[in-house]
Amino acid sequence: MAAQDAGRRLSEIAGVVGGELRGADVLVSRPVQAGADAADGICFGADEKHLRRAVESNVAAIIVPRECPDVDKPVIAVDNPRAAFGAVLSMFARVHAIPKGLHKWSMTEGAEVSPEAAVGACAYISEGAVIEAGAQIFPLAFIGPGCRVGKCSLVLPGAVLLQDVEVGDFCIIHAGAVVGSDGFGFVWDGDKQVKVPHAGSARLGDHVEVGANATIDRAPSGETVIGDGTKIDNLVQIAHGVKIGDHSVVAAQAGISGSTKIGDRVTIGGQVGMVHHVEVASDSSFGGGTVITRSVKEGGEYAGIPAKPIWQEVRIRAALPKVPDLLKRVKALEDELETLKKHVELASQDPE
Amino acid sequence: MAAQDAGRRLSEIAGVVGGELRGADVLVSRPVQAGADAADGICFGADEKHLRRAVESNVAAIIVPRECPDVDKPVIAVDNPRAAFGAVLSMFARVHAIPKGLHKWSMTEGAEVSPEAAVGACAYISEGAVIEAGAQIFPLAFIGPGCRVGKCSLVLPGAVLLQDVEVGDFCIIHAGAVVGSDGFGFVWDGDKQVKVPHAGSARLGDHVEVGANATIDRAPSGETVIGDGTKIDNLVQIAHGVKIGDHSVVAAQAGISGSTKIGDRVTIGGQVGMVHHVEVASDSSFGGGTVITRSVKEGGEYAGIPAKPIWQEVRIRAALPKVPDLLKRVKALEDELETLKKHVELASQDPE
Amino acid sequence: MAAQDAGRRLSEIAGVVGGELRGADVLVSRPVQAGADAADGICFGADEKHLRRAVESNVAAIIVPRECPDVDKPVIAVDNPRAAFGAVLSMFARVHAIPKGLHKWSMTEGAEVSPEAAVGACAYISEGAVIEAGAQIFPLAFIGPGCRVGKCSLVLPGAVLLQDVEVGDFCIIHAGAVVGSDGFGFVWDGDKQVKVPHAGSARLGDHVEVGANATIDRAPSGETVIGDGTKIDNLVQIAHGVKIGDHSVVAAQAGISGSTKIGDRVTIGGQVGMVHHVEVASDSSFGGGTVITRSVKEGGEYAGIPAKPIWQEVRIRAALPKVPDLLKRVKALEDELETLKKHVELASQDPE
Repeated sequence: MAAQDAGRRLSEIAGVVGGELRGADVLVSRPVQAGADAADGICFGADEKHLRRAVESNVAAIIVPRECPDVDKPVIAVDNPRAAFGAVLSMFARVHAIPKGLHKWSMTEGAEVSPEAAVGACAYISEGAVIEAGAQIFPLAFIGPGCRVGKCSLVLPGAVLLQDVEVGDFCIIHAGAVVGSDGFGFVWDGDKQVKVPHAGSARLGDHVEVGANATIDRAPSGETVIGDGTKIDNLVQIAHGVKIGDHSVVAAQAGISGSTKIGDRVTIGGQVGMVHHVEVASDSSFGGGTVITRSVKEGGEYAGIPAKPIWQEVRIRAALPKVPDLLKRVKALEDELETLKKHVELASQDPE
Repeated sequence: MAAQDAGRRLSEIAGVVGGELRGADVLVSRPVQAGADAADGICFGADEKHLRRAVESNVAAIIVPRECPDVDKPVIAVDNPRAAFGAVLSMFARVHAIPKGLHKWSMTEGAEVSPEAAVGACAYISEGAVIEAGAQIFPLAFIGPGCRVGKCSLVLPGAVLLQDVEVGDFCIIHAGAVVGSDGFGFVWDGDKQVKVPHAGSARLGDHVEVGANATIDRAPSGETVIGDGTKIDNLVQIAHGVKIGDHSVVAAQAGISGSTKIGDRVTIGGQVGMVHHVEVASDSSFGGGTVITRSVKEGGEYAGIPAKPIWQEVRIRAALPKVPDLLKRVKALEDELETLKKHVELASQDPE
Repeated sequence: MAAQDAGRRLSEIAGVVGGELRGADVLVSRPVQAGADAADGICFGADEKHLRRAVESNVAAIIVPRECPDVDKPVIAVDNPRAAFGAVLSMFARVHAIPKGLHKWSMTEGAEVSPEAAVGACAYISEGAVIEAGAQIFPLAFIGPGCRVGKCSLVLPGAVLLQDVEVGDFCIIHAGAVVGSDGFGFVWDGDKQVKVPHAGSARLGDHVEVGANATIDRAPSGETVIGDGTKIDNLVQIAHGVKIGDHSVVAAQAGISGSTKIGDRVTIGGQVGMVHHVEVASDSSFGGGTVITRSVKEGGEYAGIPAKPIWQEVRIRAALPKVPDLLKRVKALEDELETLKKHVELASQDPE
């Protein structure tokens, strides 16, 4: 926190981002958006519009392209302002970490916890669970039986790995996420719903993120799988037996039904729904709210209910507001045609 | 609990609501809905229908309008039965509170906790976090580094303020809510998703409520902001950098994408979706399931996918079931017109 | 865990499922899906396609119908392979249980906990709450004032019964679920939203399941009710005062608004939305994403926005992609008709 509170000199930042300081070497204490009301802030202006907005605001300094004309504020001139700002975000990001070792109020009896791992207060690690080197289990997290947390992975406060969950290396399980619950499997026996026992597991690759309060069920048999580098947003539901490939992205509140197979580098928008047992090709992309009711065999952009190629959905959305009038126009056509037919019939009878 | 268990005399209730007791001064022990099966209940009947339902049920007493004719039960006659019933709800509401001071099993090392605040068992307050007078941090809640909880605010069991979250006065963070997570920000580098570091924060005004298991991310730079008096329901997702004004209402499972700006007194229905970077005017209102894909510049009522003025959406919804038939009617028109054209052409050739 | 790790002989499994072992009495250690890459797995092949897939994979054994021809793997032949596989799932399911009695780090002061119940570490049972025989309150769960957990019910890690919640017998409250929160009730007083106090409760019947991170609010007055045998999936929202009958099923991310009444044996698909105060008949079924805006008086299958009989929705979905062209066709018809009318008028004037 000290760094953020005390701030950093522009000269230091210019050194980190490989830029040229033009103007006073002032202190800034936080990265902000162009136009923010932040006298201690630094922002970036990659184009004329954002640059003007930044200059007109009271921020302390701006990251600008090298060719930028002089402005009335200290600037750091760089080749790629957006990338440089990313580096500035990293300089100021406060990484939330807990100290190595077991907190005196953590519960780890019978668990296999690396001496290089960290376990916070009131974190609960079940008997037989494995926590590898560099992993951090935050306060109030729960790691159930048969679970393994890989190297340098984080399980944040209130997250639950219920049972038989394998988390790879460098993952983040965000606060309140639940991985490894029973799937929603019941069989109607004529009188009542009978629960399908869940003997399967859930496995997350490396570099996976699971968002706050998201849920991922374990499989009835076999595995639920989330591939390497796949990122899952808050409040997403992944049902039992789903397989997602590598480097895919699932935005908030999307819901993936059981036994679905999703490829690599797939982008799933917010609130998308997907019925069970479908397959989705790699490199496909689904707009927010799309409902996928059958397998998608080719990559491409899709949207709508049910999912269609996006150009088709765009045409439908544009057409729909015209439908109420269309009903009237067709009624009018029917009437006019009727009238015309009578007229023509009459005309053709005239000669007689 | 004593008050609820023992019940209250109608004379006491009549005194509180400024009404007139007509009939026996019986004990009631809970407010119920008109028509409930509750011999110890009190309900209200503001109109004839609800009054009849109440009289026919076995409730002990009814709150009625002053002009109400005599009925066969004890009543409290008031000017405004609905408002009076609200007061009765308050009389019976069991306010769930925890005792002032630090529970012996709370963790508050290095935190700044007011002696007038309450911290429950297994609540975790990180080093440097601030808890103001009258605030209550319930058991199993987590308050991260850089967080502040204002006067008389409640953080209920299992809620998480992850980091750099400022909560105003008189707020309620309901059970399981997560505020201040990393936003869902990644940049594709050609091989993998690279995480955007989050150096920003989240700030809630006064009198804000955040529903059970809702999620509010902190900003990558700058702030996510929820204005004074804004109420957020269960399982809502508010992405990084969103700004919501004052006295707005967001119903359950709505999802607001990153950097969206929402005005004051906006009503957002359940399961609404909103794409990123749009702006929504004050005093606008969105029906359940609306998808907002572009900025809404004027207040008013909207619905549909994408959002339209509600009258337009109503017309479209009414028209859609007629579309399958419309296709047939247009085909019939095309055929008839073709026939007629031939007939006319033939007729015009006749003279020859 | 021992059973799973060591595996079971096919002869033992054949005995349990009443089947006939054909081939070597090998060990298997987990049930898997047909086609899985699992040399220690047992799967089932009820039809030719799945059987072929199973035979071609490297699983150790297959459960097959009695009439199945010989294959090149050990099989167990049974009357009903699907049912037999269910039994195998049960044999291998790892039931996650905690030891009877109070963990030394549980908090139960003033609560009434059966000596036959189990309470885990950092579980918090409020004063006056009742935990019946055989119930298991897992680590980090919270049971608030006025709550009762019935016989043999489970409250999993991180779940919260906030207050005045009655849970029947043999229920499962999954990890992170919140039951008994304040409902989302506010009255606009001209300046601000005023909170409606919640004096009611929530009551769950027997054999109810509430999914991970699902939320069920208690009623402002009276009760929120979930009937016997009803199963609720992850991330579902049930608002204040909802009544759901017996043996209904609510899939993930569905949202049920306040005071709705839902009958028995109703099936609600994923991401369904339901406005407040509607009633839904028993034995009705709603496809994923359906929005129910008015009462449904008869059982049957529904889908769409708003809900329609499913055959109607299917016709509309098939028709919509044709609408953009329909607009053009109607324009063409209008033009042609206009031309034809002029032609006919001209023709009828010709004779003069």
